[in-house]
Amino acid sequence: MAAEAGGAAGKRRIMCVGLVCLDIISVVEAFPAEDSDTRCLSQRWQRGGNASNSCTVLSLLGAPCAFMGSLAPGPAADFIAADFQRRGVDTAHVAWQPRGEVPCACCLVNAASGSRTIVLHDTNLPDVTARDFERVDLSQYRWIHFEARNAVEQGAMLERVERHNRAAALGRRVGISVELEKPREELLPLMGRGHVVFISKDLARHFGYQSAPEALRGLRGHIQPGATLICAWAEEGADALGPDGELVHSNAFPPETLVDTLGAGDTFNAAVIFALAEGRTLQDALTFGCRIAGRKCGIQGFDGIV
Amino acid sequence: MAAEAGGAAGKRRIMCVGLVCLDIISVVEAFPAEDSDTRCLSQRWQRGGNASNSCTVLSLLGAPCAFMGSLAPGPAADFIAADFQRRGVDTAHVAWQPRGEVPCACCLVNAASGSRTIVLHDTNLPDVTARDFERVDLSQYRWIHFEARNAVEQGAMLERVERHNRAAALGRRVGISVELEKPREELLPLMGRGHVVFISKDLARHFGYQSAPEALRGLRGHIQPGATLICAWAEEGADALGPDGELVHSNAFPPETLVDTLGAGDTFNAAVIFALAEGRTLQDALTFGCRIAGRKCGIQGFDGIV
Repeated sequence: MAAEAGGAAGKRRIMCVGLVCLDIISVVEAFPAEDSDTRCLSQRWQRGGNASNSCTVLSLLGAPCAFMGSLAPGPAADFIAADFQRRGVDTAHVAWQPRGEVPCACCLVNAASGSRTIVLHDTNLPDVTARDFERVDLSQYRWIHFEARNAVEQGAMLERVERHNRAAALGRRVGISVELEKPREELLPLMGRGHVVFISKDLARHFGYQSAPEALRGLRGHIQPGATLICAWAEEGADALGPDGELVHSNAFPPETLVDTLGAGDTFNAAVIFALAEGRTLQDALTFGCRIAGRKCGIQGFDGIV
Repeated sequence: MAAEAGGAAGKRRIMCVGLVCLDIISVVEAFPAEDSDTRCLSQRWQRGGNASNSCTVLSLLGAPCAFMGSLAPGPAADFIAADFQRRGVDTAHVAWQPRGEVPCACCLVNAASGSRTIVLHDTNLPDVTARDFERVDLSQYRWIHFEARNAVEQGAMLERVERHNRAAALGRRVGISVELEKPREELLPLMGRGHVVFISKDLARHFGYQSAPEALRGLRGHIQPGATLICAWAEEGADALGPDGELVHSNAFPPETLVDTLGAGDTFNAAVIFALAEGRTLQDALTFGCRIAGRKCGIQGFDGIV
């Protein structure tokens, strides 16, 4: 992707397409027993969702960025819109839906271990469609990241970007990445799209792989030729399979104390995309991703990751 | 308390003093494992807090009632105020605080077992004070229920009601009940106040008691002479020690399927208070409390308990 970076391209934005939700985060001293009644150490509302979190991190890293996803008017959306603005994330392509509710996630962050337990209500809010995506002026973006959710519509969006890239001058092409987090059957075809594919530990394990390198070897047949496959594996760091089949590894950079791992994966993705979009090598990008994600795990929320 | 009920007294209100908070309730298929990432079956916002829930139940039972507690302006308070209004609960004595946030509880209700796991953020919102309580025209109330929270201030409020009762005609006295749920040292003196004292299974266990009758026998010395001590014990029903030292028991009335036990204790308290304020016997009131609480456990929320 080095050819896409630098010069005038530096002014184009990075867009993340996917979920935004309201995270209601309770920081607990210990994970609660079922049927118990406890007080938490602190509680906060935070804008969440993978694509939305990655925008926060991109913005903190200094990249002009945009979010595309659905919202519906109400108190949760008011909070979310204000937070996007605070972070300088462009929301011109948010699809305001006339029906449905903004998804809300109840998150328990264990202050002793940093573990995060998420109970998401992914509601009846319609996802953005290929038609919504037609309004995006692709020439303004240097990278578009898709959090795999509604495969058919997102397939059509990817096709549009691919068509754009075939016609565009080399320096005006749009980098494409796809994240597959949930092992949902209908999302798997999206692995065959994009220059960079992120797969989760969760997904790898679902397919029976016990480590990141094992997952990369097992799933390499699913990505398109010349694409990069990346798999982060918590405290074991991250591995990637580059365009020429080279295997790359970075160790994790755990903080002294694990404080809050909520959004650590989204942080990793954003930092890797940021580095690749800047033209850095895969090894550099992977190490940068692990470093920034590690820093995130040592603090509550995202302020202070840079 | 029979003398207090009936006639003109029937028009006086029942007031509950204590907590109101926002319950964000996620109904899950199974209690989540730590560090997992799951979708819930449904999610809802509900007005919560013991005293606030008891007001909901009193209102559903047909008793004119009022809530006294603290709120601070914001989206959570807007939701709560609208819900009080919907239920016809008088909120004239809500203390609107200029600082602090409305407490919020993340509740996981296990649809398979009915268990409810509560993580409460009891914030920096100041509690109502004895000075706030001075504005309450006691002649309008036939019963005031205190959820023990801020012992010193509530002690002064109780004193005011006791003073009122000493001066009032028999039919104009105000019934007083106190609920001790949390085994917090500073709350224990409140056991010595009120005509009716509710203690929780949690509190009883904290003192080493293994059943409700055992707790009643062990703790009877803490209540004032002539008072009633009541202890509910989930599926084992409830026991009470009456003004003359008589022990009374009611079995539980479990629903066919346990669906949602959140607020079951508050439902029991409200139903017992309702029955006692109507002049029914302790045995009747206890059985009524168990019956209504049982019905509550068979449904989500409170609609349909009557």
